Amino acid sequence: MELEQVISTRHSVRKFQDKPVEREKINACLEAARLAPSACNSQPWEFIVIDDPQVKEEFAKAAFSGAYKMSAWVANAPVIVAAVSDKGSFISRLGGFLRRTEFYLVDHGIACEHFVLRAWDLGLGTCWIGWLNSEKAGQFFNLPGNKKIEHLIAVGYPAPEAAQDKPHARKPFDELVSYNEYKK
Amino acid sequence: MELEQVISTRHSVRKFQDKPVEREKINACLEAARLAPSACNSQPWEFIVIDDPQVKEEFAKAAFSGAYKMSAWVANAPVIVAAVSDKGSFISRLGGFLRRTEFYLVDHGIACEHFVLRAWDLGLGTCWIGWLNSEKAGQFFNLPGNKKIEHLIAVGYPAPEAAQDKPHARKPFDELVSYNEYKK
Repeated sequence: MELEQVISTRHSVRKFQDKPVEREKINACLEAARLAPSACNSQPWEFIVIDDPQVKEEFAKAAFSGAYKMSAWVANAPVIVAAVSDKGSFISRLGGFLRRTEFYLVDHGIACEHFVLRAWDLGLGTCWIGWLNSEKAGQFFNLPGNKKIEHLIAVGYPAPEAAQDKPHARKPFDELVSYNEYKK
Repeated sequence: MELEQVISTRHSVRKFQDKPVEREKINACLEAARLAPSACNSQPWEFIVIDDPQVKEEFAKAAFSGAYKMSAWVANAPVIVAAVSDKGSFISRLGGFLRRTEFYLVDHGIACEHFVLRAWDLGLGTCWIGWLNSEKAGQFFNLPGNKKIEHLIAVGYPAPEAAQDKPHARKPFDELVSYNEYKK
């Protein structure tokens, strides 16, 4: 699909067909993520793909317990991708410290969005999930202390009722953009 | 261009032709950014496009002074886009606080990467710039205290010598991906 079409038609999908997703497709999305740019090329990302129903069920118990129960629907997605971050390379972390920001989070956004766009291109729906018990989810996979499950991506073939029936609800262009000065 | 081709051929560009960039193209890139998803749809982004040579020169003095001088080359780009972040909606900030993360930085990565990919699609080269004096850059545009210039994107038509002569230097796929368990 043309990039412009991917970007303008993509929307979040929260209802999926009860149909497995081919690992070839998941891997193509992960390959798109792998090629993403990052601060100092530190590539502070790894991915755990959960497509085994039993693992998914147990993982969901850990990740969506208590206050995080409102994300429990994610277990209905045929595939959950756990995006694991570390804090980036030493140079990237030093730069982030001096600039008082966290470059690895920006990098994480870039790479996972490559995944999301490529998924849509391949006919798959996704939803970014930031609301999870990250500690328990990390313990579930015995992640080392410097690694964190930053986000999940729910993935599957969109159910017919998941089609978007209205345009993106976004702020108007002119509110966001100014040229050579800051207008507000 | 097909999405897959955009993602697999895009690379950072740091040398540009001495040729203005049409505002129509910049606006198309910003429209792609506008459509990006964000936590709770908070859209915590604004963009200041700097394409006036005199403004650019003065901005560069503010943004790339002292320790940030190594980014001074950015002033050679025909256009600099300053991506302004705020901390996101109340719900997004609350969620980030509870999750101990900064969702707005992830959102910022997503939106700016939409810009970067669309730019490549339109024949433009870009480079993400995280190394700038964010405080002085914000003061230059009299940003209010809750807004911050998080990153810049250098934009222009790539100079012939900016062509990438080797594949992306990225970690191997198998180092990044595992299925249903964490392998390390």
